[in-house]
Amino acid sequence: MHRYKCIISYDGSDFSGYQIQPNKRTVQLVLENVLTKIHKGNVVKVAASGRTDAGVHAKGQVIHFDSPLQIPVNRWEAALNSLLPEDLAVLSVEKVHDSFHARFDAVGKEYRYVLQLSTKRDPFQRKYAYQYPYKLNVDAMREAVPYLLGTHDFTSFCSAKTEVEDKTRTIESIEITVDQDMLILHFVGNGFLYNMVRILVGTLLEVGSGDRKPSDLPQVLEARDRKFAGKTAPAHGLYLWKVFYK
Amino acid sequence: MHRYKCIISYDGSDFSGYQIQPNKRTVQLVLENVLTKIHKGNVVKVAASGRTDAGVHAKGQVIHFDSPLQIPVNRWEAALNSLLPEDLAVLSVEKVHDSFHARFDAVGKEYRYVLQLSTKRDPFQRKYAYQYPYKLNVDAMREAVPYLLGTHDFTSFCSAKTEVEDKTRTIESIEITVDQDMLILHFVGNGFLYNMVRILVGTLLEVGSGDRKPSDLPQVLEARDRKFAGKTAPAHGLYLWKVFYK
Repeated sequence: MHRYKCIISYDGSDFSGYQIQPNKRTVQLVLENVLTKIHKGNVVKVAASGRTDAGVHAKGQVIHFDSPLQIPVNRWEAALNSLLPEDLAVLSVEKVHDSFHARFDAVGKEYRYVLQLSTKRDPFQRKYAYQYPYKLNVDAMREAVPYLLGTHDFTSFCSAKTEVEDKTRTIESIEITVDQDMLILHFVGNGFLYNMVRILVGTLLEVGSGDRKPSDLPQVLEARDRKFAGKTAPAHGLYLWKVFYK
Repeated sequence: MHRYKCIISYDGSDFSGYQIQPNKRTVQLVLENVLTKIHKGNVVKVAASGRTDAGVHAKGQVIHFDSPLQIPVNRWEAALNSLLPEDLAVLSVEKVHDSFHARFDAVGKEYRYVLQLSTKRDPFQRKYAYQYPYKLNVDAMREAVPYLLGTHDFTSFCSAKTEVEDKTRTIESIEITVDQDMLILHFVGNGFLYNMVRILVGTLLEVGSGDRKPSDLPQVLEARDRKFAGKTAPAHGLYLWKVFYK
């Protein structure tokens, strides 16, 4: 048996998220079907760094799988891509130690959230950026960032649906870049809870629109209650950008 | 009756081109259906600067239509966009003279053709750029450009299917820009024949790949025969970028 680590990219628009669910087209299902085909019907399971929700994109999701096949490592990428649909691509394949695990070995992640600051509808961005037609005070948003950095209990920034017990996470950086009408929020941290990035974005947008003050954020964190944070920003602006390993 | 000029943008991926055809989803059909709805069932026809093929995109197509309605000009944009699908947007609406005609008054057009120079499949560009995984000599392509500029009979660069008699057109400029792995060809001219930009791109790619010399292009033009030019580049890299009026 050989273990392979793959970096994959997908346009989340037509997937019901990453994880297998009955009767849904998910990234995991499509990957496992292709791998099972390559293995002549022998079921191959994949493990990812984590799930992504319906509509969320990935530029650098990481998965691993095991295979007994004697395919040279540099042939795997072409073999997989020739069978995968156009909205899901393998960017690299690497042979790794049997003990590597895409999820448990991940030490950090980068997510990006893309906003298009425009009053005009853009047919080319409708699935790839959240169109925000209102005024935004980007300086106020940047002022709010330091309150979120570091290690906190992020219960307020986590979907109430989550089953995770420990909601302590560390955010290493949040950068906000503006290029023409595109505003991108870059989040790097050791891990993110269910909907955490989207709730952080929704809350920062409420700061940018003047509905909250930057200095309100410590109280939001302290409340440890989802109701105190802002709205969950839409899925289609979110990209799992990179997964970090030791 | 008032005449309105609109700049529109569409993602061509899910349209069978601009022009109405039986049982097809076309841009013209969707526009006329929305206008007819606004006019309570009274059929409203639109005229465009020209057609675009299936899969071809538009960032600045121009259309006009007539309406007896007393809608202030600044309300038309929102009225249309509220009824149009997400892949078709009205960017501006302007009241014009009764004699204005989107097609006959156009004095020039800009098209852009977008290539992604990459050996990696990119799920996010699959409908918006032509992925070109081979080496390209961009200098050779730029060397070929002057042979195409100016006024020529472009029969060799025109689909044999066309019904237009006079195949003389003037290309004012062809610029080639490179930004990371995206290569964009910008074409400005007084008008372009059926498939002309895509055949120009296909021919320039054959120059860039070394299959032709830049200095071969005068013979291609002189032949006045489609068979002498290169392949027709795929539709999904092409954008009608702007239409010029006096």
